[in-house]
Amino acid sequence: MSDEFYLSLAIDKAWNYQLLTYPNPAVGAVILDENGKILSICAHQKAGEAHAELNATKEALVAKDYRLKSLFDNAKDPNELYSLIIQNHQNLLKNSTYYVTLEPCAHQGKTPACANLLLAVGAKRVVIGSRDFGEHAKGGAKLLSDNGLEVVYGVCAKECDELLEPFLRWQSGNFTFFKIALTQNAVATGGVISNLASRTHTHQIRSLVDLMVVGGNTVRTDRPILDARLASDKSPNILIYSSKDKFDSQIPLFNVPNREVYISNSLEFAFKQRFVMVEGGENFLKNLDFRIDWILIYRSNEFKIGSSLSLNLKLKIIHRTTLDDGELLWCKRVN
Amino acid sequence: MSDEFYLSLAIDKAWNYQLLTYPNPAVGAVILDENGKILSICAHQKAGEAHAELNATKEALVAKDYRLKSLFDNAKDPNELYSLIIQNHQNLLKNSTYYVTLEPCAHQGKTPACANLLLAVGAKRVVIGSRDFGEHAKGGAKLLSDNGLEVVYGVCAKECDELLEPFLRWQSGNFTFFKIALTQNAVATGGVISNLASRTHTHQIRSLVDLMVVGGNTVRTDRPILDARLASDKSPNILIYSSKDKFDSQIPLFNVPNREVYISNSLEFAFKQRFVMVEGGENFLKNLDFRIDWILIYRSNEFKIGSSLSLNLKLKIIHRTTLDDGELLWCKRVN
Ligand SMILES: [Zn+2]
Ligand SMILES: [Zn+2]
Repeated sequence: MSDEFYLSLAIDKAWNYQLLTYPNPAVGAVILDENGKILSICAHQKAGEAHAELNATKEALVAKDYRLKSLFDNAKDPNELYSLIIQNHQNLLKNSTYYVTLEPCAHQGKTPACANLLLAVGAKRVVIGSRDFGEHAKGGAKLLSDNGLEVVYGVCAKECDELLEPFLRWQSGNFTFFKIALTQNAVATGGVISNLASRTHTHQIRSLVDLMVVGGNTVRTDRPILDARLASDKSPNILIYSSKDKFDSQIPLFNVPNREVYISNSLEFAFKQRFVMVEGGENFLKNLDFRIDWILIYRSNEFKIGSSLSLNLKLKIIHRTTLDDGELLWCKRVN
Repeated sequence: MSDEFYLSLAIDKAWNYQLLTYPNPAVGAVILDENGKILSICAHQKAGEAHAELNATKEALVAKDYRLKSLFDNAKDPNELYSLIIQNHQNLLKNSTYYVTLEPCAHQGKTPACANLLLAVGAKRVVIGSRDFGEHAKGGAKLLSDNGLEVVYGVCAKECDELLEPFLRWQSGNFTFFKIALTQNAVATGGVISNLASRTHTHQIRSLVDLMVVGGNTVRTDRPILDARLASDKSPNILIYSSKDKFDSQIPLFNVPNREVYISNSLEFAFKQRFVMVEGGENFLKNLDFRIDWILIYRSNEFKIGSSLSLNLKLKIIHRTTLDDGELLWCKRVN
């Protein structure tokens, strides 16, 4: 099979954690042993947790020697896991190939550098999707090639760059996406998504964003709470996008602890935040500001009698993720 | 990686040819070499052409020894390919593992039996999704286990059985599916699908079905030709589902050579045909006869101002296939 095939497995895996890794990039990694057998397909899942390469290395070693599982599972953090791997890899990954959607990091951050991990286990070849030009992380590929690994660049580069887009925008100041839940016939489900998996996914993202934007009409009509209870105690700060600043203070969202609520008829404040989620309906979608980067559509599996969205909008679907009995469409507007 | 992982690769591949193999089943096959490296992921593509196992064996041997490619590419039919493989496999697939969505056939049909092919190349293990209980094909697994192969059953059985459903219904008399093209906001595109890949796919299926059913209103309004010109010269026979039997004979569909056109206010005739495609719009979808087995939705990537479908219908999405910049949703109704 081609390098594209294996890197695509890493890309698909990484998308399962897209946005959930904030402020880190979504990254996937696949490891083949020296005979070309797939040992692991893993992703970075959450900031502070193991990088994709470390997760994949752990899984690959366990695939080679299952007795390592309990040892590695007891590691209390990525640093300890890294050390345990360095001490116990038994050359089981000698001459392995790593497929990574992003150049392995070369700096000691919250976790040790992944490039050094690849050297330590004796990898022979690394296939890289996107280059990392970040000040602290760059240089991983050079370190690897200086140490004799075969380094291949630019496989699935477009797909890997798309995967990386939120991270690059976070780094340059702001990533804003619009989220909407629709039935098969584009009836917006009025703020309540019936599917538990998609609600949990929404709450996971809400617990991470710096600001959540919601339309004034939605607040008045749905009287939402907009918390993240299915994922976390941390509720997002809210900007109510509205020309009128009078709201019933009994609406649940105003009574969530440790939350700021702003009311504004401008999104300027929002675009100064780093990671912003906009939830809204038809009007919002019709009048999307061009600075909104992505559109995330949760699509249920049913047609429902109701008011379908009526607008002209051409999308590029960057990725599709199945979510229980529905799906997530990660989209950009095509001009 | 698990058996489910590899069999899923075979299942996904087979779906690319779903319905196009009529009257044969859609089948996928994956081969791993003795070290667990993936050598090939292939499918049966068309009746009269090579079975999935034969295609996968060819690809796997070429992956092991590229010089075999030109030899195999010159085979004039599956029988010759089979013979060339038997003579030239050089034990390159000794101790290989086959993943097949359907039990390998055990009878000489238009092509030699796949079970014998697995024996000839020295496979060690075969993982099977669905059993084959057909009179002529059954017994493949028994032949393999009698000859010392490890045979594993029932992996991804539900997914493999779903993949097989049209074939089982063709065998028991009738498989009927409803096809509709929709925008993101469920505007039916009035018979003209803009995406060339989805139009070609529609034409491929039209060239295979025994009967195509279309609503009388669609015929009067759209004045369609309903041929299969993007795929074949063979246009489908048509049943116009209508209570009135007066139509303008200048409507192009009436003037296609070698085609029968029936007009009826009953689908009884249709359900006596083996492979039937229904094309229609909102009314058809609202009143779908319960004997319609599947719904195939071609979904474009744009929202478009127009009349969105308004109905209640809960779907199970069996499979999603990306098609250029749109997608195919293979669905069943959930009662
Ligand atoms: Zn790293
Ligand atoms: Zn066969």
